[in-house]
Amino acid sequence: MAGGARRMSERIRQFTEFRQRMNTRILEHDNQVVRRFFALDTQCYKDGVLDVKTKEMLGLVASLVLRCDDCVSYHVAQCRQAGVSRDEMLEIFQVGLLVGGSIVIPHLRRAVDFLDQIEAMPAAGVAPAAPD
Amino acid sequence: MAGGARRMSERIRQFTEFRQRMNTRILEHDNQVVRRFFALDTQCYKDGVLDVKTKEMLGLVASLVLRCDDCVSYHVAQCRQAGVSRDEMLEIFQVGLLVGGSIVIPHLRRAVDFLDQIEAMPAAGVAPAAPD
Amino acid sequence: MAGGARRMSERIRQFTEFRQRMNTRILEHDNQVVRRFFALDTQCYKDGVLDVKTKEMLGLVASLVLRCDDCVSYHVAQCRQAGVSRDEMLEIFQVGLLVGGSIVIPHLRRAVDFLDQIEAMPAAGVAPAAPD
Amino acid sequence: MAGGARRMSERIRQFTEFRQRMNTRILEHDNQVVRRFFALDTQCYKDGVLDVKTKEMLGLVASLVLRCDDCVSYHVAQCRQAGVSRDEMLEIFQVGLLVGGSIVIPHLRRAVDFLDQIEAMPAAGVAPAAPD
Amino acid sequence: MAGGARRMSERIRQFTEFRQRMNTRILEHDNQVVRRFFALDTQCYKDGVLDVKTKEMLGLVASLVLRCDDCVSYHVAQCRQAGVSRDEMLEIFQVGLLVGGSIVIPHLRRAVDFLDQIEAMPAAGVAPAAPD
Amino acid sequence: MAGGARRMSERIRQFTEFRQRMNTRILEHDNQVVRRFFALDTQCYKDGVLDVKTKEMLGLVASLVLRCDDCVSYHVAQCRQAGVSRDEMLEIFQVGLLVGGSIVIPHLRRAVDFLDQIEAMPAAGVAPAAPD
Repeated sequence: MAGGARRMSERIRQFTEFRQRMNTRILEHDNQVVRRFFALDTQCYKDGVLDVKTKEMLGLVASLVLRCDDCVSYHVAQCRQAGVSRDEMLEIFQVGLLVGGSIVIPHLRRAVDFLDQIEAMPAAGVAPAAPD
Repeated sequence: MAGGARRMSERIRQFTEFRQRMNTRILEHDNQVVRRFFALDTQCYKDGVLDVKTKEMLGLVASLVLRCDDCVSYHVAQCRQAGVSRDEMLEIFQVGLLVGGSIVIPHLRRAVDFLDQIEAMPAAGVAPAAPD
Repeated sequence: MAGGARRMSERIRQFTEFRQRMNTRILEHDNQVVRRFFALDTQCYKDGVLDVKTKEMLGLVASLVLRCDDCVSYHVAQCRQAGVSRDEMLEIFQVGLLVGGSIVIPHLRRAVDFLDQIEAMPAAGVAPAAPD
Repeated sequence: MAGGARRMSERIRQFTEFRQRMNTRILEHDNQVVRRFFALDTQCYKDGVLDVKTKEMLGLVASLVLRCDDCVSYHVAQCRQAGVSRDEMLEIFQVGLLVGGSIVIPHLRRAVDFLDQIEAMPAAGVAPAAPD
Repeated sequence: MAGGARRMSERIRQFTEFRQRMNTRILEHDNQVVRRFFALDTQCYKDGVLDVKTKEMLGLVASLVLRCDDCVSYHVAQCRQAGVSRDEMLEIFQVGLLVGGSIVIPHLRRAVDFLDQIEAMPAAGVAPAAPD
Repeated sequence: MAGGARRMSERIRQFTEFRQRMNTRILEHDNQVVRRFFALDTQCYKDGVLDVKTKEMLGLVASLVLRCDDCVSYHVAQCRQAGVSRDEMLEIFQVGLLVGGSIVIPHLRRAVDFLDQIEAMPAAGVAPAAPD
C-alpha cells in the first residue's frame, strides 16, 4: 500500500520534472513567437471575468475531448488546486465523455488514475506555473 | 439595417428548424442506442453538482476546440439563455483559441457572428431542448 | 412535395457534379503521387477478403467519426448501392455516434437528410467510381 | 523465444488489468451519466441488424482513424474473438490507413504487434465485457 | 465563361470581406489574450530564419491535414503571393494527402477550385494581413 | 552525463528497431493496398519540384499539428539529415504551435527532447528509408 503510493508519487514527480525541465529548455531558444505563446498560455488562465476555477475547468474539458493525457493531468492538478471537488471533476468528465465519445474513455481512465494518485499524495502535488 | 437583421433571423430560424426536424427524424427510427444517446445528451447538461451555466460553458469550449460550427452555435445560444455575459463568452473563446490554436479562428468568426445575430433578434432566439 | 424532391435531387446532382469535375481537374495535374493515391483509394474498396458491402460500411463509419460530410454522403450512397438496408445504416451511425460522441450529431443529421434525399430520388443517385 | 512470449503476455495482462480496474473505479462514482454511457457503449456492440463481428470491425476501423491505441487493442481482441481472420484484419487496417493517412502508421505498427502477441498467447487473451 | 469568372470573384470577395469584417469585430472586444493571439499569429509568418514562402507552405499543409477550408484558402492565397508555383502547390497537397489520408480529398477539391478561381481573377486576389 | 547519453541513444535505438521490425512485419502480409501505400509514402518525400528538405519540413509540421509523437520523431530525424538547422526547426515548431494551439505543447516537449538526444549521439541517429 505505502509502496504503491510511493511508486505513484514517483511517477507524478517524474512527469512534473520532465514538463518543467523541457519547458525551460524550450524557452532557452531564441524564438520570440514560441516564448510569447507560452506567456500567453499562462496569462489565459489567470483570474478575469471568469475566475481561475472556471477557466481551469474549461481547460480540462478541452484537453479531454482533444485527448491529450499530459494536458488532462496538468489541468486535473490545477483544478484540484483551484478547489474543484471530486464530484465536480466527474461532471466535467461527463461532459467530455458525451461530447467526445467512447474514444475518450482510455483518457478518462488515466485521468481518474492520476486524480487518485494526487489525492493519495502527502503534499501539494503537481507544481503549477508552467504551460500545460 | 432592418433588412440585415431580418436576413439574420431568417438564417437562425432555418438552422433551428433543420436541427429540430432532423432530430425528430432520427428519433423516429427504431434504434434504441441512438435514442438513448440523445436522451443522455440532454441529461448531461441538466443542473447537477455543476449548474447549467457552467455545463453549457464546458459544452461550448469543447465544441470550439473540436471545431463544430453547429455545436458552437447551439451552445452559444444555450450559454446566453443560461446568463453567460458577452465578456464571459469572450473568455471561453479565449481558452478555446489558446488550447486549439489558430485553426479555431474561422469557427470563432462564425461564433461571434452568430452571437451578434441572436443579440440583434427581437425575441428568445434558438429553441433549446434538442441535442447539440 | 414534388418541388421539395426536385430541389433535393438538384442538390445531390450539384454535389456529384462538383466532386467529379474537381477529381478530373486534380488528376489533370502532372503529379504521380496524387494520381496513385486516387487509384489506391479506388482499389481499397474493391471486393477482397471482405466484400464491397463490408468495406463501404467501414468507409462510412470512418468518415462519420472523422466528421467529413462529403465523405459521409459518398459512402452513404455507396453503401446503399451495395445493399446496406436502412436499419443497418442506422446501426453504423450508432457505432459512429458512440465512438465519436455528440460532436457527430450534426453530421448524423446531414447523413440522414442525404439518405432521405437519395431514397426519394427516382433513379440511381450518386455516381460511384470516384474517390470519396 | 519463450521469454519473449512471456514478456508479451505480461504486457497484455497489465493492459487488461488496468482497464478493468479503472473501469470499476470510474463506475464506483455516483455519476449516472457516466454509468449510462458505459452501459450504452456495451449495448452498442451487441448483436442487432448487424452481427457482433461486423460491429466490432466498425469499432476497430473507427478507433484506428481516431488513432486511439487502447481502443484499437481492445477491438482487435474483440474482432479476433468474433472470428475475424488475419486477412480480414489487414483489410480493415487497409481502409483505416487509406482514410486516415500515414499518420495512422504508428498505430498500425502497434496494432499488428498486439495482434501478434495475442495470437502467441496460450489462451483466450484479453477479457471482454468492458467498454473500450 | 466571363460570367463564371465573375461569379467566382464574387465568392472570393465575399469570403475575404467576411473574414476581415469579423476579424475587426473580434478585435473590438476588450480581451487582451485574444488580441495578443491574433498579433502573434501575424508575427508567426513573417520573415525569419525561414522565409515567408516556406512558412506559408508550412501553414498550408498544416491547415490541410487539420481540414480547415477557410485556413486552406487563406494560405493558398498567401502562398501564391509568396511565389509558390502551381507544381509546388500540388506537392504541398501531395504531402497533406499522404499524411492526412483520403479524408483530406474533399478539402483538396475545394483548395484546387479556389486556386483556379484566384488564378482566373484579374487582380491581386485575397487581401493578406489578417489572421488565417 | 555519459550515462544519460547512453540511456538516450538506447531509447532511440529501441524506437528505430521497433519501427523497422514492425514495418517489415506489416509488409510480409499479402495485402497489396497496404504495400502500395507504404511505397507511395516513401515516394512522397523524394526530391521533386520541392526538394527533400522542404518536404521533410512539411511532413514535420503536419505530424506536429496532428500530434503524432512517432511521426514527429521520425521527421525531426529526417529534417536533421536533410540539413534543417536548429533555428529552422524551432520556426517549424512555432508554426505548428500557433496553428495547433497549446495542445501541441506536450508533443513539442518530446520533440525538443528527441532533438537533444539525436544531437548528443555520436553517429548518424535514426535510420531513414522507412515510412513514418
